[in-house]
Amino acid sequence: MTRRARAGARPAAGGRVVLVGGGPGDPDLLTLRAWRALAEADVVVADRLGPRSVLDDLGPDVEVIDVGKTPGHHPVPQEEINRLLVEHARRGRRVVRLKGGDPFVLGRGGEEVLACREAGVPVEVVPGVTSALAAPAAAGVPVTHRGVVGAVMVVNGHDPVPASALAGLRDEELTLVVLMGVAGLDDLCARAADAGVDPEMPVAIVERATTPTQRVTQLPLRDAARAAREAGVRAPAVVVVGRVAAPDLLAARHTPTVLSERGEARASRASDTRPTRSALSERGEARASRASDKSGAAPRGRLVGTAG
Amino acid sequence: MTRRARAGARPAAGGRVVLVGGGPGDPDLLTLRAWRALAEADVVVADRLGPRSVLDDLGPDVEVIDVGKTPGHHPVPQEEINRLLVEHARRGRRVVRLKGGDPFVLGRGGEEVLACREAGVPVEVVPGVTSALAAPAAAGVPVTHRGVVGAVMVVNGHDPVPASALAGLRDEELTLVVLMGVAGLDDLCARAADAGVDPEMPVAIVERATTPTQRVTQLPLRDAARAAREAGVRAPAVVVVGRVAAPDLLAARHTPTVLSERGEARASRASDTRPTRSALSERGEARASRASDKSGAAPRGRLVGTAG
Repeated sequence: MTRRARAGARPAAGGRVVLVGGGPGDPDLLTLRAWRALAEADVVVADRLGPRSVLDDLGPDVEVIDVGKTPGHHPVPQEEINRLLVEHARRGRRVVRLKGGDPFVLGRGGEEVLACREAGVPVEVVPGVTSALAAPAAAGVPVTHRGVVGAVMVVNGHDPVPASALAGLRDEELTLVVLMGVAGLDDLCARAADAGVDPEMPVAIVERATTPTQRVTQLPLRDAARAAREAGVRAPAVVVVGRVAAPDLLAARHTPTVLSERGEARASRASDTRPTRSALSERGEARASRASDKSGAAPRGRLVGTAG
Repeated sequence: MTRRARAGARPAAGGRVVLVGGGPGDPDLLTLRAWRALAEADVVVADRLGPRSVLDDLGPDVEVIDVGKTPGHHPVPQEEINRLLVEHARRGRRVVRLKGGDPFVLGRGGEEVLACREAGVPVEVVPGVTSALAAPAAAGVPVTHRGVVGAVMVVNGHDPVPASALAGLRDEELTLVVLMGVAGLDDLCARAADAGVDPEMPVAIVERATTPTQRVTQLPLRDAARAAREAGVRAPAVVVVGRVAAPDLLAARHTPTVLSERGEARASRASDTRPTRSALSERGEARASRASDKSGAAPRGRLVGTAG
């Protein structure tokens, strides 16, 4: 409990809840609006997933309530989370509910909005970069690609995969992305085989997407469940099934003919031969990006090129 | 052409391309990484959609190449865009390809990655907040909601809707989100009816999502095509079909019992009676958010609560 809440010096008016989509884990993938909501927060109610490191950057007066759920441990029930949000807002506090990914994509954000509205508490939703799309991107997998597939479906791996998802995979109409996809991987593979999905259909499993320990495993559907067990694949992970998950989809089909004297071009070719790591997840590029952060681009106002 | 390129003072080394997902339109929904890429850019190749206003904030030496496509006008062909990206990077320039939404969600980002790699040009992808999810959120529509639906499918309205999408809607297994959904709305509604989708299935049409002129039209499937014509619905728009698109899904089912003496609580109730406008799109809240931006939260380093 913060000093202010103890002292009761602040009137109860002004309390509100902001559901913030925190993105897949990398704090640089927070939106500007998300950062501002965090900067203004009195209380942050945080999940286990998402950009946890930003919690260390909060001011000393900010109360952090960790409702993170670890697999196999008792989670904080959703009703209790709802109660916490409402209770703190009713005390006049600015509450940020920091969620992994996007609040409305398998994030139970709708339930939290309802709980706030039913209690008369103002509530705002800040959309985020969903892991369902950022995890494939970080693995170099475009969930749609012209001439390959023009639709993507996102499901929750804790539920049985919908029949329409399997039909879409069989007919190669869609890319299937499974959030929380590790526990149900055996079942998914078995059902896909039963539904007539091509056993050679590519699968990409992205563990800890966009974090320094990201790992990508790519293999055909017929081998996916066994290989994932052998590789020790663990949650959190996003599973992508579809032609776009093929390791060579975005690999150069021609040898680059220019820039061969340059370090950058060599690095690019090297990464093309390791298609399970995208440019986004290449550690070297990530470090370069962070180093260049010192140029200090302001989030508001004029964007001035650093080489100006 | 910028002074630097004319003078040839900068060596060709260091050229690169960053595909930046710019989100649905509101510049506050850019990620921190997207802002940094823009701040470091020598050249920005911009789409018609996405956060166009940030182009005004670029430094005077930054070259902006507008490849925006207006419906009915000749677009810049994708091959020409690819050529521009490669050509400018080969001159040693830092090129940002600023795209609406997310580069890999119906954004043809994969083709641009391939073009760069085949030319030996380093390329990085920054995922963004896709309009496919942010537009429903801005309309108060959670694309998944516990007890209602646990899957979401995103398709391109320029293509015929996949059979699996219609089957999923008929069986109420998924929420269907159609990007660029206006031109094909008649066809979508007819095919859905033929496929046995409930004619009462809710539809939400979100025009110009997250911008000051956002408009949301909500109605049942059987009326959607006609009503959209009567309302003069125009691109850009995102169409959401599914139980979650019902106007009252996130409306309070009980009268708020507290805070009734407060302006905030009254505002909350008012917005509950206008379910086509979410908290995100309420102009008053947006203004309040912008006003509070003056607190100047730094995007890096310590997040200090403004009421500290």
